[in-house]
Amino acid sequence: MTDFAKTRAQFHLPPGVIYLDGNSLGPLPRSAEQRVTHCLNAEWGQQLIRAWNKAGWMALPRVLGDKIGALIGAGAGTVVLGDTLSIKVFQALAAGLALNPGRRIILSDDGNFPSDLYMAQGLLGLKAGDYRLKIVPPEEIAASLDEEIAVLLLTQVDYRTGRLHDMESLTRKAHDLGIVTVWDLAHSAGALPIDLAGCDVDFAVGCTYKYLNGGPGAPAFIYVAPRLKDRAQPALAGWLGHAAPFAFDLDYRPAAGIERMRVGTPPIIALTALEAALEVWAAVDLGDIRRASLDLGDLMIREVALHCPALELASPSEHSLRGSQVTFRHKEGYAIMQALIERGVIGDFRAPDAIRFGLTPLYIGRDEIKAAVAILKEVLDGRLWDRPRHQTRAVVT
Amino acid sequence: MTDFAKTRAQFHLPPGVIYLDGNSLGPLPRSAEQRVTHCLNAEWGQQLIRAWNKAGWMALPRVLGDKIGALIGAGAGTVVLGDTLSIKVFQALAAGLALNPGRRIILSDDGNFPSDLYMAQGLLGLKAGDYRLKIVPPEEIAASLDEEIAVLLLTQVDYRTGRLHDMESLTRKAHDLGIVTVWDLAHSAGALPIDLAGCDVDFAVGCTYKYLNGGPGAPAFIYVAPRLKDRAQPALAGWLGHAAPFAFDLDYRPAAGIERMRVGTPPIIALTALEAALEVWAAVDLGDIRRASLDLGDLMIREVALHCPALELASPSEHSLRGSQVTFRHKEGYAIMQALIERGVIGDFRAPDAIRFGLTPLYIGRDEIKAAVAILKEVLDGRLWDRPRHQTRAVVT
Repeated sequence: MTDFAKTRAQFHLPPGVIYLDGNSLGPLPRSAEQRVTHCLNAEWGQQLIRAWNKAGWMALPRVLGDKIGALIGAGAGTVVLGDTLSIKVFQALAAGLALNPGRRIILSDDGNFPSDLYMAQGLLGLKAGDYRLKIVPPEEIAASLDEEIAVLLLTQVDYRTGRLHDMESLTRKAHDLGIVTVWDLAHSAGALPIDLAGCDVDFAVGCTYKYLNGGPGAPAFIYVAPRLKDRAQPALAGWLGHAAPFAFDLDYRPAAGIERMRVGTPPIIALTALEAALEVWAAVDLGDIRRASLDLGDLMIREVALHCPALELASPSEHSLRGSQVTFRHKEGYAIMQALIERGVIGDFRAPDAIRFGLTPLYIGRDEIKAAVAILKEVLDGRLWDRPRHQTRAVVT
Repeated sequence: MTDFAKTRAQFHLPPGVIYLDGNSLGPLPRSAEQRVTHCLNAEWGQQLIRAWNKAGWMALPRVLGDKIGALIGAGAGTVVLGDTLSIKVFQALAAGLALNPGRRIILSDDGNFPSDLYMAQGLLGLKAGDYRLKIVPPEEIAASLDEEIAVLLLTQVDYRTGRLHDMESLTRKAHDLGIVTVWDLAHSAGALPIDLAGCDVDFAVGCTYKYLNGGPGAPAFIYVAPRLKDRAQPALAGWLGHAAPFAFDLDYRPAAGIERMRVGTPPIIALTALEAALEVWAAVDLGDIRRASLDLGDLMIREVALHCPALELASPSEHSLRGSQVTFRHKEGYAIMQALIERGVIGDFRAPDAIRFGLTPLYIGRDEIKAAVAILKEVLDGRLWDRPRHQTRAVVT
């Protein structure tokens, strides 16, 4: 049984703030400062270049990849860290297309995070011929799968509404039709149990600064199925994905396994902050996280329905369809969120009218949800968004 | 006049170490810890998601880009930070090819850092048709330029020998033939004066962990000439390069100017370490750096010729042909470098037989060069590499 009082104590949460935006940027783990200053002083400062080996820097993307793998149902040696999520999407899509050379279509949905779609567009712009990106509403994905599609690119949890795709059934249906699957776990890794190996997913990618609390702009990760990891062709053929990076050959030869998805020199300081953040998961059961997060969501939906009738629920209420956030719509959503933030309740806004609240049992409990809804009621009842105390603009990712 | 005693005081250099590997990983700036812990505690910890605006995180890649621009002859708004150097090479090459649609060849030299060549190979693998990468020896580049070549990709200073390409004349000759130029400044940014605008370079890329001391795996940068920055087409079309990232359109539209070369969420903690590292340059004249670095190189070449006749000079002795390192060859180079490192002289080894020493007047002076050569002489005269005290392996980038 996960002890949420203990996990909560591992984070710094500023007094007077109810933080419901951990789906955008997780809070600071208390152990991060010590680990990062150790990296700066004892490793970089004292060991200098020697730290690449002595301090284990060179292996860090793989070592942390295994730790993240354990949270997403991926075996050791199938996940590696590096770059940003957008870059990892590009890698997975390029490799996926190459595995399906006779086909020309990437299928995705209009609830996908736009950067995933943009990276697909950029990739297809490089490839000559009649490649195209087909975008349909999320609920039409299953019916849109056919034998013309090369790659299915989906984000498991919708960044706006929290709507959850069924990874298992969509992956199975895709495979039945010979389609390669790329799952983006940005809003699900660390938020709910995921079984990549069990679902036989081909590629998965994700970021580590949301539910994994790795810090602003923390490195991304990529998973490649064991059956593909020696076949997937790296399009971003960087030297650290080479079979022998320090041989300095003039020709690229991909490394065996997941290492080939490494590109350039890894961001060590950021990786050490993430390393600290991942410690919390040792004592956490993702089933407990899921149960607690759904409970927080149910509570928020119920309380809002009761006290804030002006808000329209945009998230599915059914558990099997909902990730780890709840979203409401209101035409004054932007101003309402500003008024909330000024009063210490931090969620975020997504154009045109969505206010989002991330539910993160690691450090948020029922009391905070109730307190947040009480403040939300105050803002709505008093139309407090009409009288902003000062102008701020939340920019969130 | 640059005060090198003052710049030296700004770095942490471990006692007992002569650090001649700043061309691989610059040492820790003393101000880094304070700036990074401020980012962790006061920004991430206290402001949470709001720090993207309040702490200026979102603008950091451009703000630091301008600071680096000032060191490489690039005007404000033409340089942006992000990703790794390999990724930036890919971006520049893809944009360069798109600007020269009738041509099919990328030309580079066999002294280029292999990752640049690998990224070119990866890119060309995505593009259908008869694209190819042509690799010639460095001294044949000028004669190999012709009207079939789309893009000339060169690293200004050879990572092995320190051989320096003539950026101005090669760029001019390339332009006369309609060739787009991509210059990799990995071993020249912060090492010598560079005038990108004056040379009319099209694209430049570089890393910040060598002579710019940004820390292990610090973010890379890309420069796009003002005349191209609204025309260059981003192949890595990430959301932060979009004209309106927070509109969450489904279609990619590149931002105006250099911002379009941003891809994903920027690595904030790493950027703040770099921000601290860049402070030193406010009181530095790159002409002084260049003069001092050539002087250190001359001294080392002279002392080695005198005391270590077994070593063969691999670097050009002529100033106009040499960057900011000196390299020697010896068939036992690897073991010799290990013996040196064990005795506190840190340089590095490049297969098959090169031992490299980076010359960084910011924190290294003539006395260290003399002391390093004395130890080198001791190692060579006593064949001390035959008796390793313990086994280590230097892995350097």
